[in-house]
Amino acid sequence: MEKQREESTESLVISGRNAVVEAFRSGKTIDKLFVLDGCKDGPVQTIIREARKQNTIIQFISKERLSQLAQTGNHQGVVAYASAYEYATVESMLEAARAKGEAPFLILLDGIEDPHNLGAIIRTANQAGAHGVIIPKRRAVGLTATVAKTSAGALNYTPVAKVTNLGATIDELKEQGMWFACADMDGEIMYRSNLTGPMGLVIGNEGEGVSRLVKEKCDITVSIPMVGQIDSLNASVAAGILAYEIVRQRWEKK
Amino acid sequence: MEKQREESTESLVISGRNAVVEAFRSGKTIDKLFVLDGCKDGPVQTIIREARKQNTIIQFISKERLSQLAQTGNHQGVVAYASAYEYATVESMLEAARAKGEAPFLILLDGIEDPHNLGAIIRTANQAGAHGVIIPKRRAVGLTATVAKTSAGALNYTPVAKVTNLGATIDELKEQGMWFACADMDGEIMYRSNLTGPMGLVIGNEGEGVSRLVKEKCDITVSIPMVGQIDSLNASVAAGILAYEIVRQRWEKK
Repeated sequence: MEKQREESTESLVISGRNAVVEAFRSGKTIDKLFVLDGCKDGPVQTIIREARKQNTIIQFISKERLSQLAQTGNHQGVVAYASAYEYATVESMLEAARAKGEAPFLILLDGIEDPHNLGAIIRTANQAGAHGVIIPKRRAVGLTATVAKTSAGALNYTPVAKVTNLGATIDELKEQGMWFACADMDGEIMYRSNLTGPMGLVIGNEGEGVSRLVKEKCDITVSIPMVGQIDSLNASVAAGILAYEIVRQRWEKK
Repeated sequence: MEKQREESTESLVISGRNAVVEAFRSGKTIDKLFVLDGCKDGPVQTIIREARKQNTIIQFISKERLSQLAQTGNHQGVVAYASAYEYATVESMLEAARAKGEAPFLILLDGIEDPHNLGAIIRTANQAGAHGVIIPKRRAVGLTATVAKTSAGALNYTPVAKVTNLGATIDELKEQGMWFACADMDGEIMYRSNLTGPMGLVIGNEGEGVSRLVKEKCDITVSIPMVGQIDSLNASVAAGILAYEIVRQRWEKK
């Protein structure tokens, strides 16, 4: 059993069959499972089954690459990357809002890639009184040590959930009475939009914005007025400005 | 004459007496001058005089350290660090506001140290329609290549001025009718403050906030409402939220 921090991703690297199985069964969030290509014996099949059950991303790779990832030769054909921090459930966020007697306020991030942006947004979510941050499983940065550091401690207080399909999560939350505002440069100026009530704010990827499929699920699109000569704002700054427009509208309604 | 990019600071490294003199005389912004300790001959005295005239920071250092900075042995006792980008004057910002028929809107940064924060704030200034960003000469990051990159092109449009004394600059601008709002956690909630008219927004250092001397120069202090368990917001996010409160108040006044 080998556990060590991996420099580049700053997640926990777990290698060896027993260690990986144990990590899955303990409820630890495994971001990725790497399996030696062609390795199909019983214990490895058990691990793959466990990974599929938890919707973990599985990659089959060469022996050389696996040894490199494991940083040890003793990986027995499996290496797992676990989150540096634990994820929460979306349901627990709604419960927290209910317990406080507040309308739910969630921030959904459609593919934020820069850990500094994710950390800064979790920090903003905490200060703005959001009940949680939701990120997708794929094509997005997870809760690495850099994210935790940039969140300036907010990660200890503001829950982050990781979901398989952001669109499906929006559908489920809409059924529970939530309303979704998608950040979009062509959206209605935020000052004109009604952002009170149970609200999910959807922020897009640094380069591409919110994906079409997720945008179509949203009830409204909102924009920050921009008079400059460049394309956009920094993603964490834009998230901060929009989150605080929600804060302002809630504050003025009181 | 040797010019090359220095990796760590990403400013232009100029070494050799003629090159350094020429850089000063061409009006290039020299951030720092390094002189060989004990070197006091005529040409070096001329360079030091030039540096003092322009309020450049001067450091006397050992031969070993100087050769290291120069990345060449042929420095002739002087090495200068020049800005990767050119600074503007505060007066040119006021002129730009006048030309547009707008009330001046400036963002003053009291000691931002992180180049990513400075870049993101210049980007926000551009989109929020601020006429410029003012930074102090000492204890703050200057216009490095990282700042330019993080600004996403905004540095080509939004002027940045570097001043010796932020408090003195505020005094001068107050005489010209400007009004200064200092970001401060104990300030009045920003929604309650009147932020219209010719306005300078003062944002503090990442760790310490706005220094006492600068804060005392300001007309009002403003705060972002924060309900979280942590200390503060990321500096560039806070600057964005406050800048856009100014935008909102100007927008609603129209």
